[in-house]
Amino acid sequence: MLVTLGEAMVRLTPPAFRRLEQATSLDVHVGGAELNVAVGAARLGLASRWVSRLPENPLGRMMANRAREHGVDVSHVEWVRDGRAGLYFVELGAAPRPSSVLYDRAGSAMSGIVPGRFDWSRIFEGARWFHVSGITPALSESAAEVTAEALAAAKAAGLTVSYDLNYRSKLWSPERARAVEEPLMRFVDVLIATEEDTRVVFGAHGGQSTADAAAFELVARSLATRFGFSAVAITLRENPGVWLNTWSALVVAGGERYDAPRYQVEIVDRIGAGDAFSAGLIFGYLVIGGWDAAVAYGTALSALKHSVPGDFSLSTREDVEQVLKGAGLRVAR
Amino acid sequence: MLVTLGEAMVRLTPPAFRRLEQATSLDVHVGGAELNVAVGAARLGLASRWVSRLPENPLGRMMANRAREHGVDVSHVEWVRDGRAGLYFVELGAAPRPSSVLYDRAGSAMSGIVPGRFDWSRIFEGARWFHVSGITPALSESAAEVTAEALAAAKAAGLTVSYDLNYRSKLWSPERARAVEEPLMRFVDVLIATEEDTRVVFGAHGGQSTADAAAFELVARSLATRFGFSAVAITLRENPGVWLNTWSALVVAGGERYDAPRYQVEIVDRIGAGDAFSAGLIFGYLVIGGWDAAVAYGTALSALKHSVPGDFSLSTREDVEQVLKGAGLRVAR
Amino acid sequence: MLVTLGEAMVRLTPPAFRRLEQATSLDVHVGGAELNVAVGAARLGLASRWVSRLPENPLGRMMANRAREHGVDVSHVEWVRDGRAGLYFVELGAAPRPSSVLYDRAGSAMSGIVPGRFDWSRIFEGARWFHVSGITPALSESAAEVTAEALAAAKAAGLTVSYDLNYRSKLWSPERARAVEEPLMRFVDVLIATEEDTRVVFGAHGGQSTADAAAFELVARSLATRFGFSAVAITLRENPGVWLNTWSALVVAGGERYDAPRYQVEIVDRIGAGDAFSAGLIFGYLVIGGWDAAVAYGTALSALKHSVPGDFSLSTREDVEQVLKGAGLRVAR
Amino acid sequence: MLVTLGEAMVRLTPPAFRRLEQATSLDVHVGGAELNVAVGAARLGLASRWVSRLPENPLGRMMANRAREHGVDVSHVEWVRDGRAGLYFVELGAAPRPSSVLYDRAGSAMSGIVPGRFDWSRIFEGARWFHVSGITPALSESAAEVTAEALAAAKAAGLTVSYDLNYRSKLWSPERARAVEEPLMRFVDVLIATEEDTRVVFGAHGGQSTADAAAFELVARSLATRFGFSAVAITLRENPGVWLNTWSALVVAGGERYDAPRYQVEIVDRIGAGDAFSAGLIFGYLVIGGWDAAVAYGTALSALKHSVPGDFSLSTREDVEQVLKGAGLRVAR
Amino acid sequence: MLVTLGEAMVRLTPPAFRRLEQATSLDVHVGGAELNVAVGAARLGLASRWVSRLPENPLGRMMANRAREHGVDVSHVEWVRDGRAGLYFVELGAAPRPSSVLYDRAGSAMSGIVPGRFDWSRIFEGARWFHVSGITPALSESAAEVTAEALAAAKAAGLTVSYDLNYRSKLWSPERARAVEEPLMRFVDVLIATEEDTRVVFGAHGGQSTADAAAFELVARSLATRFGFSAVAITLRENPGVWLNTWSALVVAGGERYDAPRYQVEIVDRIGAGDAFSAGLIFGYLVIGGWDAAVAYGTALSALKHSVPGDFSLSTREDVEQVLKGAGLRVAR
Amino acid sequence: MLVTLGEAMVRLTPPAFRRLEQATSLDVHVGGAELNVAVGAARLGLASRWVSRLPENPLGRMMANRAREHGVDVSHVEWVRDGRAGLYFVELGAAPRPSSVLYDRAGSAMSGIVPGRFDWSRIFEGARWFHVSGITPALSESAAEVTAEALAAAKAAGLTVSYDLNYRSKLWSPERARAVEEPLMRFVDVLIATEEDTRVVFGAHGGQSTADAAAFELVARSLATRFGFSAVAITLRENPGVWLNTWSALVVAGGERYDAPRYQVEIVDRIGAGDAFSAGLIFGYLVIGGWDAAVAYGTALSALKHSVPGDFSLSTREDVEQVLKGAGLRVAR
Repeated sequence: MLVTLGEAMVRLTPPAFRRLEQATSLDVHVGGAELNVAVGAARLGLASRWVSRLPENPLGRMMANRAREHGVDVSHVEWVRDGRAGLYFVELGAAPRPSSVLYDRAGSAMSGIVPGRFDWSRIFEGARWFHVSGITPALSESAAEVTAEALAAAKAAGLTVSYDLNYRSKLWSPERARAVEEPLMRFVDVLIATEEDTRVVFGAHGGQSTADAAAFELVARSLATRFGFSAVAITLRENPGVWLNTWSALVVAGGERYDAPRYQVEIVDRIGAGDAFSAGLIFGYLVIGGWDAAVAYGTALSALKHSVPGDFSLSTREDVEQVLKGAGLRVAR
Repeated sequence: MLVTLGEAMVRLTPPAFRRLEQATSLDVHVGGAELNVAVGAARLGLASRWVSRLPENPLGRMMANRAREHGVDVSHVEWVRDGRAGLYFVELGAAPRPSSVLYDRAGSAMSGIVPGRFDWSRIFEGARWFHVSGITPALSESAAEVTAEALAAAKAAGLTVSYDLNYRSKLWSPERARAVEEPLMRFVDVLIATEEDTRVVFGAHGGQSTADAAAFELVARSLATRFGFSAVAITLRENPGVWLNTWSALVVAGGERYDAPRYQVEIVDRIGAGDAFSAGLIFGYLVIGGWDAAVAYGTALSALKHSVPGDFSLSTREDVEQVLKGAGLRVAR
Repeated sequence: MLVTLGEAMVRLTPPAFRRLEQATSLDVHVGGAELNVAVGAARLGLASRWVSRLPENPLGRMMANRAREHGVDVSHVEWVRDGRAGLYFVELGAAPRPSSVLYDRAGSAMSGIVPGRFDWSRIFEGARWFHVSGITPALSESAAEVTAEALAAAKAAGLTVSYDLNYRSKLWSPERARAVEEPLMRFVDVLIATEEDTRVVFGAHGGQSTADAAAFELVARSLATRFGFSAVAITLRENPGVWLNTWSALVVAGGERYDAPRYQVEIVDRIGAGDAFSAGLIFGYLVIGGWDAAVAYGTALSALKHSVPGDFSLSTREDVEQVLKGAGLRVAR
Repeated sequence: MLVTLGEAMVRLTPPAFRRLEQATSLDVHVGGAELNVAVGAARLGLASRWVSRLPENPLGRMMANRAREHGVDVSHVEWVRDGRAGLYFVELGAAPRPSSVLYDRAGSAMSGIVPGRFDWSRIFEGARWFHVSGITPALSESAAEVTAEALAAAKAAGLTVSYDLNYRSKLWSPERARAVEEPLMRFVDVLIATEEDTRVVFGAHGGQSTADAAAFELVARSLATRFGFSAVAITLRENPGVWLNTWSALVVAGGERYDAPRYQVEIVDRIGAGDAFSAGLIFGYLVIGGWDAAVAYGTALSALKHSVPGDFSLSTREDVEQVLKGAGLRVAR
Repeated sequence: MLVTLGEAMVRLTPPAFRRLEQATSLDVHVGGAELNVAVGAARLGLASRWVSRLPENPLGRMMANRAREHGVDVSHVEWVRDGRAGLYFVELGAAPRPSSVLYDRAGSAMSGIVPGRFDWSRIFEGARWFHVSGITPALSESAAEVTAEALAAAKAAGLTVSYDLNYRSKLWSPERARAVEEPLMRFVDVLIATEEDTRVVFGAHGGQSTADAAAFELVARSLATRFGFSAVAITLRENPGVWLNTWSALVVAGGERYDAPRYQVEIVDRIGAGDAFSAGLIFGYLVIGGWDAAVAYGTALSALKHSVPGDFSLSTREDVEQVLKGAGLRVAR
Repeated sequence: MLVTLGEAMVRLTPPAFRRLEQATSLDVHVGGAELNVAVGAARLGLASRWVSRLPENPLGRMMANRAREHGVDVSHVEWVRDGRAGLYFVELGAAPRPSSVLYDRAGSAMSGIVPGRFDWSRIFEGARWFHVSGITPALSESAAEVTAEALAAAKAAGLTVSYDLNYRSKLWSPERARAVEEPLMRFVDVLIATEEDTRVVFGAHGGQSTADAAAFELVARSLATRFGFSAVAITLRENPGVWLNTWSALVVAGGERYDAPRYQVEIVDRIGAGDAFSAGLIFGYLVIGGWDAAVAYGTALSALKHSVPGDFSLSTREDVEQVLKGAGLRVAR
C-alpha cells in the first residue's frame, strides 16, 4: 500500500480555451499533488491511502468523494468545521499563450493541519511506501511540521519514502523552500523533480535543453550524493507548443542511469502529469520491480496523463502496457 | 444618479438542480446586494455608480466587467493586489429541499476596505440617492467604518439614503448587527427590509403570515417612528414551494400606506429579488415620482427578477410597465 | 397524404430561461407553422409534403434536413440563391414574465415566393388534404398570391382544405389581414383558430374566459355560417402561469359541437402547440375518422406538444392514444 | 452495516425534457435499486456494502466508481469478462406526458450471476441488515437462485432482512413474480412496497386513492399476517402532475401503524425515490431506533430524493433532519 | 441510385477528450459503415437507399431519422419488436493514447436479419450500384446469408458491386472472415480496403509504410487477379499523432494505377473516414466518371470527413471541389 | 483616447468543430472589426469609444453590453427602431476544411446610417486617434458617406487616422472597393492591410510567400508613396494548417522598416486577429511610443488573439509583455 499526505483543491476550468475572465461556466475537477499520486497508483492496482484535512461542507465532501471514486482510502482524513476548501482556477492556453493557474488556497482546511493529531502507526499499517511533495510543507508552518512528523514516522516504520520537489513560487521563495526542505531530505529515499525545480530549490544546474539527458544525469548524481538518496528521478519536458510537447524522464539509482522513451504528447490537460509520473514510478518499482520498470511505467503513465481532462491519471495498467509495448495510435476495433 | 457601496462576489451555481457535491460544471454569475441594485436601476435607465474594492486578477476584472456590461460606472472601484475575490455557491432547490447558499467570502478584497481612502465628494457628484445594505458593515470592522463614513457623507451631500437591512446570519449575530446598525440609522431616509429581518435585527414583530399586511404596516410605522425614517418598505414573500411563491410589498411613508399587487412568481432564481425591489423602488420614486410608483415599480421589478438566472435584474423599463399594465402571460407575436 | 405550404425559420432559444440579452449559447431548432403541421402529421403516420422556398446555404439545408428527419417530403421545395433564412429568437419565461418572440424574418427566401412557379397538380398528386395558415399570405404580397393560387388549386383538385388563422401582429394589421384573408375563405373547408384570433381578424367575440365553451360555440357557428365552412375548430387556453396552463378545444361541424377534455399542461415549450392541434385534427379526421376523433387527437397531440422542446410535435400515435385512454402520469416500467 | 444485492445500470437521460429520439447528448448517471439503497444509507452515515457482478470495462468500472464515490464498499463485486453493462434510458416528462423508461439490460453481467460463487459469511461479517428488491430475482433464473441463497444466508446470519417488491412488468409477469417471490417471503422481516405493487404481485387491494391511508393499513396488516412479516411499509404517491406530487408512507409493525407527513414534492427526478425510502427506513430503524424514526426518515429522505438529478439519494443526515424539524423553504443565509 | 446494406448503431462519445469512465454526458450520433456510405453519397447529390433492420423504439427511430435527415431513403428498412439498438462508445484520444471504441452491439435487431425477407428486385429498382462491407456478414450467420443473397441479387440485377473489407477483430477472427468472405468475392466488382485489412484477411502484404505506394499497388494487382475484381482501392493512412495524420489512397483498375494527393488532416473525428472514401469513390465514378475522378473524390471526401464530428460525411459537392481545386485554408470572406 | 466607427454583429458559432448544418446549439459572441479594435485597445488600458448604429432590441443591447463590458464607451451609439441586428455564422475548421463565415448582415441598423447625424466634434473630444476599416464604407452608400464624413472630421480635428483595408468580397467587388476607397486615402495616416488585401484592392503585389518580407516591404513603400501614408503596416500569415499558423507583421514608416518576431500560433479562433493587430499597434504607438513598439505590441497582441474564443482580444498589457519578453509556454505556478 502507498500512503500520501497533502492538500486537495477544487479545480475550476473554463471550457473550450476560454479565458477565466470570459467564463460563463467552469468545469469542476478535484486535484492536489499527493492525491493525484494516490489516485494514479490506485487505478493501476496499487492500494493507496490519502491523508489530509478537509472542511465538513459540500466542497470538502466532493474532494473525498472523488478520491474514493477511484479507490483511494480516505478514512484517515481529518474533517473540520474551520477552514475552507482550497480552490484553483486553470486557464488552458494555446501558443503563444501558456496555460496558467490562479490559486485561491489561503485559509484552506489543510493549511491549518497541526502536528500530533494523526496516528501514523495506524496510518502506515500495511504500507510499503510514503509519498509527499514540496507543496505540503509550503502550505503553512504547521503543515511543514506535520510533513516532518510524517516523514520521520514513515522512515521509522520502514517505508520507502519519495519526495517530489514540486516547487511553487506562489507559496514560498526558493530560499524558504530550501531552508525548510533540506532538513527533510534525510528521510527521503527517492527524490523526484523536474529539471527546473532542482535548479530553483537546490541550485543544481542541468543542460540547456531537456534533450541533454547527460547533463541531467549529472544533476541527479550530485543530488544523490549530497543528500544520500537511493534514487533520483528527473522528468524532462520540451515545449515547442502548448498543445504538443515531448516528455521523458531518467532515474539515477545505485550508480546506474535508467532512461525512458521520449514521447510526443498531444496535450489535453498537462496538470498532474508530474504526479502521474510519481504514481507510475512507485507502481513500477513496487509491483513490477526495479528501476527499469519504475522509469518506464512512470514516464508512460505521465505521457498518457496529458491526454485526460482533470488532474487525475485515469489510465489503467492495461493502458500503460499498451503504450509500453508500442501498440501505436490506430483505433482498436 | 444612484450610488451604491458594497461587495460583489463570483457566484457559482450547479446547473439543472444538481447538488453542489455532484456538480461537474458550475454556471458563473456575478452578484452582490448593492451591485445588484446598481445594475437593476441602470437597466431601467437610471444612471448608477458602484463603489467597491476588487482584486487585480481575472476574477476581479470579471466582476467589474459584468457591472459595466449593464452600464454601471465602476470608475471609483479601488483595485488592490491583496485580498481575494469573494465567492459563493448556490444550490437551486425543489420542495422539500430549499435553495441554499455556501459563502466563501472570508479574506475578500472588499472586507479589507478602510476609511479615508475614498473621495466621497467626487463620488457623489451629480448623485441624488445613496444605497447600502446591512451586508457591507457586516463584512469587517473597517467595512463598518467605511459604511458609516459613506452614509455621513451622503447625508451631508444632501442625497436621499436608503438602507436594506439584509441580515446575514453567516456574517454576524443579531446582537452585533443591532449594535452596529442602530447608530447608522440616523443617516437613513428609507429603510427596506423583509418581514423576517425587521424581527431578527430590530425585534419588530409582524403578523403570522405575509398575507397579514396590516400587521406589517404596524411594524413599518413603529420603525419609522423609532428611527425617524421618512419611509419604510417591507417585502412580503410566501413560500408554498420553491418553484412557486407569492410576492408583494408595502411602503409606509408620511403616515400613508402604499400597497403593491400580490404576484404569483414562477421561480427560476430568486437570489437578488430583494435587491431588484430596491432598484425598482428607487427608480420609481426618483424617475416616475412618489411612493405609489416606488412600491409599484419595486414590486414588479422584483417579481420579474425571479424569472431570470443570476443575481441581476435584467428587466427593462418596458418589461416592468408591461407587468404594471397587466399585459398577461400570452406569448407576444 | 397531407400537403402544407409555408415558411420555416431557424429558431434560436437561450437555454435555462436566460434572457436573450444574456445568452452565451442558443439552442437551435427549426420551426414554422405549416412545417410543424406536416411534421406532426408525419410522425403520427400520415404521409406529408411541405412546399416552401429555401436559400441554398447551410441554414436552408438545415431546415430541409429537419423536415426530412421526421419523414416530411421536401422534394417540391424551391431552392434559391437570393433571400436569407428567416430566424426567430424565443425567450422562455416564468410568471410574471411571459415567453416572448423576436422575429428576424424580413427578406427571407420564402417571402420572395412568386405565383406560377409551382406545379400544383404534381404537388397534390395522391394528396387528400391541404393546409395553410394565415402566416403565409402575411409574408409578402406575392406570398399572398401564391397562397390564393395554392388554395384554388387544392380546391380544384378535390382536397379538403384547412386554414389556421394564426394572426401575427408583427406581420400585418388586423385590417390588412381581414382584407387579404376574407377572399381566401371561399376555398376553405375547415377553419382553425384560437379564441383570440377569431376576434382580432373577424371580429367574432367569444366568452370572457375560455372556460366559457358555449360562447365559443356561438363564434364557431357564426363563422361557419358566414363563410360556409364545413367545420370550425377553436382552441381554448387558460394561462394561470407560464409553466402551467389548461388546454382544450371544440369543433363545430355539421351543426354539431364536438368537445375535447380539458388538459392540465406542464409547459416545457408551448410554441407549435396550435400547429400540433391542426396535425392531430387532420390525422384524426382522415385516419381515425370523424370529428370526434379529430378534436380528440388534435387536443391530445397539442397537449403533448407543450412537453417537448422545439416547435415540432414529436409524439407518436401510441403516445397520443396513451393519453386518450387515460394512462396517467406514472412512470411506465 | 447494511448489505444489498442487485444490478446497477448506466442510466442515460436527455437533458432539458428532450425526447430520447431528439437527444443530441445524454446525461450519464448510475443507478439500480439496491445500489441506490446502499448509497442512500451510506450518505446518511450507515456503512454499506453492495454485492453485484460487473463487466471488466469502462462502463463496469464507472458503476463501481460511482458506488465508491459515496462510500459504498464494492470489494465483493464479482468482475467478469462476459456480459455487458446494463443500460437504461429515461425520458423526463411533463403533464400530460409521463416520464418513461427504456430498459436495455438483457445480457447484463448481473443477469449471469450464479449461485455458489459468493462467500456470504464473509460478506455478512459485521452486517446487521440485508436488503434486496424484486428486481434481482426477476433478472434471470440463476439470479433468482442467488437471491434465495443470499436471503437464506442473511437470515441464518441473524440479519434483519428487508425486501422491496419493486415489480417491473418489463422483466416478468405478475404470475411469474408471485411464483418466484412467495417462497422468498419466509426469509423476509420487512416488506416494502408501493400501493400498486402489493396489488399486482400479491393481489392485495388498497383504497381508491393514496389519501385513503386506512385502506392501505389493512393491506399492510393482511400481508404481515399472510407472510409473517414483522413490518410492512407502503409508500403513497399522488400524481396531480409530473412536476408536482404528494408523497407519504405508512408502516405497520407489531400491530401498530406509524404514519409520516404528507409532502408536496417538486420533482426534478423521481427515479430512485422508493429506494431512498428504503435507505431512510433502514437508517431510521437501525441508527435512530424504532418504527417511528424509520417511517419518518424514510419518507423525508425519499421526499428529498425527488429534488436531486440521478438515481442516488445524495442527502445528508443533516438535510433530512432539517426537513423533519420543519425548517421550511427559505434560502438559508 | 446507390443501395447499401448494413447495421447502424447509436454512437455515444464523451465530449472534450474525456475518458468514458469519467463521462458525465455523452454526445449522441448515429453511425454504421454502410449507412455512412449512403449518407456521404446522398449529400454529394447521388440518390441513396439504405437497407437494414431496426427496433421499433425511440433509438431505432432515431437511427432512421438521422438517415432521412440527410436524404437517405429508408423505406425498405424492416421494423421489428425483437432485438435492440446496437450501441457503441467512442473515446477520442490524444497521443500517446489512441482513440478507442467499445462496441455494445450483441443482440441488435440487425444481427437477427434473415434471408428471404427482402424483395431485392424492388429494392434495386432504379439502382446502379450496391455497396456492403465486411461488417455485415460478421454480425451473425444469418446476416452473412443475407449478405450473400443481396450480393447475388445485385449482381443479377446488373449493378456494380463494391465491398469494403472493414475487418473488425471484435466480431470475428481472420480465419472466419476469410472463410465467409472469399466466396462472396465472386459477386464483387470493386474491392475497397485499408492496407492493414488486406493483410489480415487475405494475407496480402504491402509495404513497410503507407508512403510505399508502389508496394500497395502490387497488393491491389494481386487481389484483382486473384478474385477478378475490376478495381481495387486501398486507403493509406500515416499516424504520426492522433490529431494529425496523412491520408491518401490509390486505385488499380484495368491495369492502371490512379493516385490521389496526400492530405495533411487535422483530426476532429476519424470514425467514418473509410466510409466517406467509399461514398466519394462511388460518386466520383458514377457521376463525374472514371477512376481518376473516383480516387480524387473519394480521397478528398474522406480527408474532409476527419474534420467533422460524428460518423457521417457532411460535405457537399462544393466542399469537395474546393479541396480538389486547392482553395487553401484561409477563411473565405 | 481612440475612436472607432463600424458595425458590430452577433456572431453564432457551432461548438466543437460542428458544421453549421448539424448544429444543435450555437455559441454567442459579439464582433465587428472596429469594435474589436476598440475592445482590444481598451483592455490594454487605452480609453476607447465606439460609434455605431444599433437596433433597440435585445440583440442590439447585447452588442452594446459586450462593448461596455470591456470598457468601451458606447454613449455615442445611435439607437433606432428600424433595422435589424446583423448576424454572422462561423464554422471553425480543421485541415483540409478551412474555417468559413456565413454573413447575414443585409438590412442591419448600421447599414442604414446616414451622414449629418453625428456630432463629430463632441465624439472626437479628447481623442488622439481615429480608426475605421474598409468594411464600414462597404456596408451601403450612405455608410460610405458617413465614413468619409468621419475621416474628414477626424483629420480636421488633428487626430491620427488609421484605416484597415479589410476587403470583404461578400460585400463588394475589388473595383467598387477601389473606387470608393481611393478617395478616402487622403485622410489616412496609417494604412493597415494583409498581404492579400493590398493586392486585391490596390493591385500591389508582394512575394510568393509571407516569408518573403522584403517583397512586402516594397509593397508597403509603394503604397506609402502613392497615397502619402506616414506608415503602412502589413500582417503576414502562413497557413500550413487550420490549427497551426505562423504570424508576423512589418511596418514601413518614415522610410524605415520595423519587423516583428514570427510567432507559431496554435489557433482556437483566428477571427479578429487582424483587429487585435490594429489595437496593439495603436496602443504601442500612442502609449509605449514609436513604430518599434507599435509593430511589437500589434503582432504580439494579435498572436495572442488566436488563442481566445470570440472576436475580441481579451489580453491585458501584462499578457502582451510576457510574450514580448519571451516568458515561454510553461504553466506559471
